[in-house]
Amino acid sequence: MAKVLTSKEDNYAQWYNDLVLKSGLAENSAVRGCMVIKPYGYAIWEKMRDELDRMFKETGHENAYFPLFIPKSFFSREANHVEGFAKECAVVTHYRLKTDEETGEIVVDPDARLEEELIVRPTSETIIWNTYKNWIQSYRDLPIMVNQWANVVRWEMRTRLFLRTTEFLWQEGHTAHATRQEAEEETMQMVKVYAEFSENFLGIPVLVGNKTESEKFAGAVETLTIEALMQDGKALQAGTSHFLGQNFAKAFDVQFTNKEGKLDHVWATSWGMTTRMIGALIMAHSDNHGLILPPRVAPIQVVIVPIYRGNDEFPPIAEAANKIKAQLTALGVSVKFDDRDTQKPGWKFAEYELKGVPVRLAIGPRDIENGTVELARRDTLEKKVMPQKGIATYIHDLLEEIQQSIYQKAINFRNANTHHVESWDELVDVLENKGGFALAHWDGSKESEDRIKETKASIRCLPLDAEPEEGKCVVSGKPSLRRVVIAKAY
Amino acid sequence: MAKVLTSKEDNYAQWYNDLVLKSGLAENSAVRGCMVIKPYGYAIWEKMRDELDRMFKETGHENAYFPLFIPKSFFSREANHVEGFAKECAVVTHYRLKTDEETGEIVVDPDARLEEELIVRPTSETIIWNTYKNWIQSYRDLPIMVNQWANVVRWEMRTRLFLRTTEFLWQEGHTAHATRQEAEEETMQMVKVYAEFSENFLGIPVLVGNKTESEKFAGAVETLTIEALMQDGKALQAGTSHFLGQNFAKAFDVQFTNKEGKLDHVWATSWGMTTRMIGALIMAHSDNHGLILPPRVAPIQVVIVPIYRGNDEFPPIAEAANKIKAQLTALGVSVKFDDRDTQKPGWKFAEYELKGVPVRLAIGPRDIENGTVELARRDTLEKKVMPQKGIATYIHDLLEEIQQSIYQKAINFRNANTHHVESWDELVDVLENKGGFALAHWDGSKESEDRIKETKASIRCLPLDAEPEEGKCVVSGKPSLRRVVIAKAY
Repeated sequence: MAKVLTSKEDNYAQWYNDLVLKSGLAENSAVRGCMVIKPYGYAIWEKMRDELDRMFKETGHENAYFPLFIPKSFFSREANHVEGFAKECAVVTHYRLKTDEETGEIVVDPDARLEEELIVRPTSETIIWNTYKNWIQSYRDLPIMVNQWANVVRWEMRTRLFLRTTEFLWQEGHTAHATRQEAEEETMQMVKVYAEFSENFLGIPVLVGNKTESEKFAGAVETLTIEALMQDGKALQAGTSHFLGQNFAKAFDVQFTNKEGKLDHVWATSWGMTTRMIGALIMAHSDNHGLILPPRVAPIQVVIVPIYRGNDEFPPIAEAANKIKAQLTALGVSVKFDDRDTQKPGWKFAEYELKGVPVRLAIGPRDIENGTVELARRDTLEKKVMPQKGIATYIHDLLEEIQQSIYQKAINFRNANTHHVESWDELVDVLENKGGFALAHWDGSKESEDRIKETKASIRCLPLDAEPEEGKCVVSGKPSLRRVVIAKAY
Repeated sequence: MAKVLTSKEDNYAQWYNDLVLKSGLAENSAVRGCMVIKPYGYAIWEKMRDELDRMFKETGHENAYFPLFIPKSFFSREANHVEGFAKECAVVTHYRLKTDEETGEIVVDPDARLEEELIVRPTSETIIWNTYKNWIQSYRDLPIMVNQWANVVRWEMRTRLFLRTTEFLWQEGHTAHATRQEAEEETMQMVKVYAEFSENFLGIPVLVGNKTESEKFAGAVETLTIEALMQDGKALQAGTSHFLGQNFAKAFDVQFTNKEGKLDHVWATSWGMTTRMIGALIMAHSDNHGLILPPRVAPIQVVIVPIYRGNDEFPPIAEAANKIKAQLTALGVSVKFDDRDTQKPGWKFAEYELKGVPVRLAIGPRDIENGTVELARRDTLEKKVMPQKGIATYIHDLLEEIQQSIYQKAINFRNANTHHVESWDELVDVLENKGGFALAHWDGSKESEDRIKETKASIRCLPLDAEPEEGKCVVSGKPSLRRVVIAKAY
C-alpha cells in the first residue's frame, strides 16, 4: 500500500506532523495556534488523565476549579512571575458585541469596555493564592492539597500540534504547607509521581533533576523537572514540580498562625503536566508505519479483523471473534472487533498500524478450520499463527511484555545516546552531529550557561542521582563537582 | 449548636447561598461572576461527570476537544444563533501585555491587537461545524457522535453560585447525521439520557417536553428540555437537547454525498448539561440542616465518627471503625473515618449534616462493650442503635433505600405542587401564591405566550407525555388540544 507518512529519516518534523494528522490524534483549527484534539487523541488524553488523577488522589490530593480569567493586576504582584507569564497572553478587554447600525456587522461594543482587563490564565498561581488567602488562617487549615484539570492559554508565535499550542490542556497542582520542609517534600513527591507515570505508564524513561536558575519557573525558588529523550536526539521537558517558597504567600498576603501561635507566611508548591506529553509519547516510540502505543495508554489494546469473502464465510468468523473478544474483555483488555464491510482487511491493517493498536488479530476461513488466529505485534511487527484456545490469556500476558519491551527499547536508545563529554569540542560534536544527552561538567555560572545556550542547546537539568565527581567545566575550565545534562530541546 | 444557615422558610435565596458557602461547595472569586468550585463541590461534579460520561459512551459517543476561542465572524453565519449568543460574551482583542515605560505598570500592548477579535466560547456549534466540514465528505463519514467536556463563558449581569455564573463547566454533545430522522432520534435519545440521569442518579424527577418557539435554543429547529421543580415552587431547566436541522450545516457549508450519490446538507443535534445541575441538586432535596445528597452522587456515602475521652478509649473504637470501613469498602461503599482529634464529635455531626453525607455512624465506649454502633440517616434524621455484626450489608441496602426515598419525596412534592388551572385567575393564583407547575391550556400563539411572560413566568415545556385533551387557552379562550407547563423559573 502507499506510504502515508514521510519517513522519520527524511524529515523528522514532517513525519511527526503527518503522524498526528493521519492517525487522527489532532489537527489545526481555524483559530491560530489552537488545535482540535480529535476523538482518538482525546481518548489517549483520557487514559493519561485518569491514571494521573488516580495517582494524585492516592497521594492525598483533591480536585477543584478556579476561574479561567485573572485580573491583570494580579500578575504584577509577584515580580518574577509577571516577567515570565504576563506578556504573551490572551487579553479580554470587552464583554459585549453589538450590531453596527450602519454596516449591519457584528462589532465590539465600545461601551462595554472592562474597567480592568482580564487575562486568560496562562497558569493559575495568582488567582489561586488570592483564593487561598481566605481559606487559611491557622496551621489547622494546612496543608491544602489541590489539583485542577483545566485549559490554559499562552500566546505562542510558532506552534506545533501537542508540543506547543496557544491553548492546551493540563493539570496544575497547587499546595499550601505550614513548613518549608513539608513543601519541599511535596515538590519532590510530585516530580517522582511524574517520573513514575512517565516510565511505568507511558514507557518513557526520564531523568529527574533540578532546573538551573535561568530555566526555572517564573516565581519559583526551585524547579524539578523530568526530561525525556526523543528519537531525533532532542530532549523534551515532560513535567515540572516547583517549590515556590513563600513567594506567592507574600505576594498575596497569605499568613497563618503556626503551632507556636506566631504568624508566618505559607509555603507553596505547584506542579503540572500537559497535553504536550502526547507529543512526547509519539516521539518516544513510534515508527514509519505509525504510532506505537504502550498497552497501558492504548485506547484500543487489541483489534480483531475478520478476513472473508461473501456472506457465508462471515458468521463463523464473527462467532470466533466475539468469543475471543468476550474472553479478553473479562480479563480487562480493551478490544475492538472491526466488522465494518465498508473497508478491506488491508486498509484496516494499515489503519490500526497507524493508530498504534498493540495487538492485531486476523481471523479467516482457514483459521476457522484449524482453530487458529493470526496474531501481529505492533511494536515488533512480528506475526505468528496461534491456536484460538488459550489466546486470551496469552494476549493478556503479551500486553505486559509489550509494555516492558517498549520501555526497555527506549532505555536502550537513551543509553546509546547519552554521551560523557570532557571538552567544548566534544560537547559541540554531540549537539551538532550526534544528538542526545551530553553529560558535562559545568561551573554553575550564568556566563557559562549563556555560552551553552548560544549553541541553541540548554542545560536540561542537574540530575538528582548524579554521582559527585570532580571535573572541569567544559566552557570555562573552572572546577565542577558534578555533571549536568545538556541537550537541544523541544 | 448555633444555626449556620438562614432557614428556607425565612429566605430561600439566602438559605441557598449560605448552604453553598457553608457546606464548602463553591464561593465567589475575585473575578466578577466567576466562581471557585471548592473540592467538595468539585467532587460532586466529578461523580456527575463520570456517570454522564459513562451514559454517553454507552450510547455510542466519543469525547473530543475544540478551541476555547471562536473567531467573531463565525457567529454571524447562523442568523438566529448570533442573536442569541454573540452579545454578552468575553471578547479577546489583544495578545500581549507590556510594561509601560513611564509608569512601570503592566498595560495592554496596543501593537498587539488581533486582526479579528476572538470570542471566548459561549457554546461551540460554530467552531465545531467549521471543523466538521473537513471531516465529512460521504455518508460513510456519518454519523459523528462527539461530546466535549469544557468551560464556557456567557457574560451575566446577575450571577448566583452554580445557577448562573459567567464561566461554568458543562458538556456539549455535537452530532452529525445523514438523515433528518436519525438526528431527531438522537435528539430524543439524549433528552432521555438526561431524564434518566436526573431521576436515577440525582433523585430529581423531571418533565420532558418541547420548548416553545420563543424559548428554544438560538439556531435550533426544536429544543427538548427536562424541567425540574425546586422546593420554593420554581422550575429549573436542567438539560436541553436540540434538533438543529440543517441550519449549521448550511451556515458552514457542510455537505455530504448520500447513499444515492447526491449532495445533501448534514443533519445536526447538540445537547448540554452544566454545573447548574449542582444548584438543582441542592434545591431539590436539602433542608435547614444542610445538604441532602442521594447516595449515588455523594462523594462520601458513610462517615464514621469516634466518640471518646482520653487516649485509652480510642484504640478499640478505631479498630471497630476500621473493620466496618473495610467491610463497606469491599461492598463498593465510600467511607470516611474522621479520626481527627482537632474537632469534637458534635462539631463533626453538624459538619457532615451540612455536607449531606447520607449515613453517619458514631461509635463510643459503650458501643464497644455492647458490640453496637449508632446509625443516623441524613435524609430523615432518624437515629438508631444497631449491632456491629452485619452492619455493612445493612448500610449497603439502606443506601439504596435512601436513594429511592429521596426520589419519592421529590415526586410527592412535585405532585402536591402541580396544579391544573382552567382560567387566567387560577393561573395567576398559582404563580403568585401557590408556586409549582401550572398545567394550563394554551392556544399556541406568541401573543398568549407573551401575556404569560408578563407575569414573570414562562411556558416551561409542552410535555411529551401530555394526553390529548380539548380545552380553552387560559389567556385567549381560544381552543387548545393539550396542556402546557407554566411556572416561574430559575
